[in-house]
Amino acid sequence: MQEDSIAVIQAKLKAFAVERDWEQFHSPKNLAMALSIEAAELMEHFMWLDLTQSENLPEEKRRQAAHELADVFIYTLRLAERMGVDLIQTTYEKMAINAEKYPADKVRGSAKKYTEY
Amino acid sequence: MQEDSIAVIQAKLKAFAVERDWEQFHSPKNLAMALSIEAAELMEHFMWLDLTQSENLPEEKRRQAAHELADVFIYTLRLAERMGVDLIQTTYEKMAINAEKYPADKVRGSAKKYTEY
Amino acid sequence: MQEDSIAVIQAKLKAFAVERDWEQFHSPKNLAMALSIEAAELMEHFMWLDLTQSENLPEEKRRQAAHELADVFIYTLRLAERMGVDLIQTTYEKMAINAEKYPADKVRGSAKKYTEY
Amino acid sequence: MQEDSIAVIQAKLKAFAVERDWEQFHSPKNLAMALSIEAAELMEHFMWLDLTQSENLPEEKRRQAAHELADVFIYTLRLAERMGVDLIQTTYEKMAINAEKYPADKVRGSAKKYTEY
Repeated sequence: MQEDSIAVIQAKLKAFAVERDWEQFHSPKNLAMALSIEAAELMEHFMWLDLTQSENLPEEKRRQAAHELADVFIYTLRLAERMGVDLIQTTYEKMAINAEKYPADKVRGSAKKYTEY
Repeated sequence: MQEDSIAVIQAKLKAFAVERDWEQFHSPKNLAMALSIEAAELMEHFMWLDLTQSENLPEEKRRQAAHELADVFIYTLRLAERMGVDLIQTTYEKMAINAEKYPADKVRGSAKKYTEY
Repeated sequence: MQEDSIAVIQAKLKAFAVERDWEQFHSPKNLAMALSIEAAELMEHFMWLDLTQSENLPEEKRRQAAHELADVFIYTLRLAERMGVDLIQTTYEKMAINAEKYPADKVRGSAKKYTEY
Repeated sequence: MQEDSIAVIQAKLKAFAVERDWEQFHSPKNLAMALSIEAAELMEHFMWLDLTQSENLPEEKRRQAAHELADVFIYTLRLAERMGVDLIQTTYEKMAINAEKYPADKVRGSAKKYTEY
């Protein structure tokens, strides 16, 4: 499968919503809720597992979790579009901020939050 | 800015984690938690707003919310990589499932869940 | 129904887990995930509603949402017990902190976060 | 400290909101979002820990996590009041449902969801 650009997927998602007259429900507030709910449904697959088990989901579970991850991605793309956010550019901006907050030499092997250094 | 493919961003995120010896923390279970936490931080920007206000965030708020959305995207990409999931292909699969669950003629203008029809 | 104290409900929840040999799954990390997942399931009932609609759920929806709220409460009680936290006393402590952070005269009618004043 | 009934705490929380003219923000939809956000802030304390570490938080972390748990409880109580839900009675109802869904003899030592048996 050829990898469509994010903009192409966003256009398809918008068409999907328009055909169903669902744009009226897709305010940023509602989409942020939907995104958070899908993230929780994804998390549910890992809830009672230990960390090692979470690395080795049975295939059927892995497929289900992958579909929840896709739902997260779908609402992320919809929300970016409704907020007028360029997702890729903003991601590079955020990665640059994170690199500054967490210099490799300082944080190596530690999971502390940047405010705790 | 040229739009890198998702695989390129994933490689950069992996390098970021490896340089900091953070791969040890990035089990799928932990990444799913991190994703859910970032989704909540995004939602916080909309918590007390009504739906119309959420369409019109002041610029500084919009920039902050965009950065939280980028964090959601970052953890989505990391988790896809750690689970061995092709995010784009899985998203198209999920969109096909959604199209079948929610035929446009049947659901137009309604926000009911597919189990309620 | 006589209102049992929180400690009584906690003892019943503990017995429920012990009888099923579920204490092994109830680490604070897992319970915090479970709590967050139940909160999302509760939120799902309100996802596509506007604020006024959310005040007037149809009776069957209200009953379902009430059960999700009970699940949130159940995991809150379990987690408090496993963390050795006195929930009522800590709640009064937190209410005192909130009263100091948000003096009535200063914040009346505003939903800003205390860091924004 | 004498343990006030839940109704007493709910009355104090209502007074707190009324004094600040915050009842206008406390629709069930918004309170469900707030609850979910507090649950995520609680979860953040456990995000990168393994299950055993989560049983042994350093005292300062434990105190912070306890305060987040109190916030979860506060929004649970507020939402119950705004929805007209008797939290204790509904919790006993839900516990009875759970006992039926998960008979001890059938589920002992297993973390599967009831739909998976």
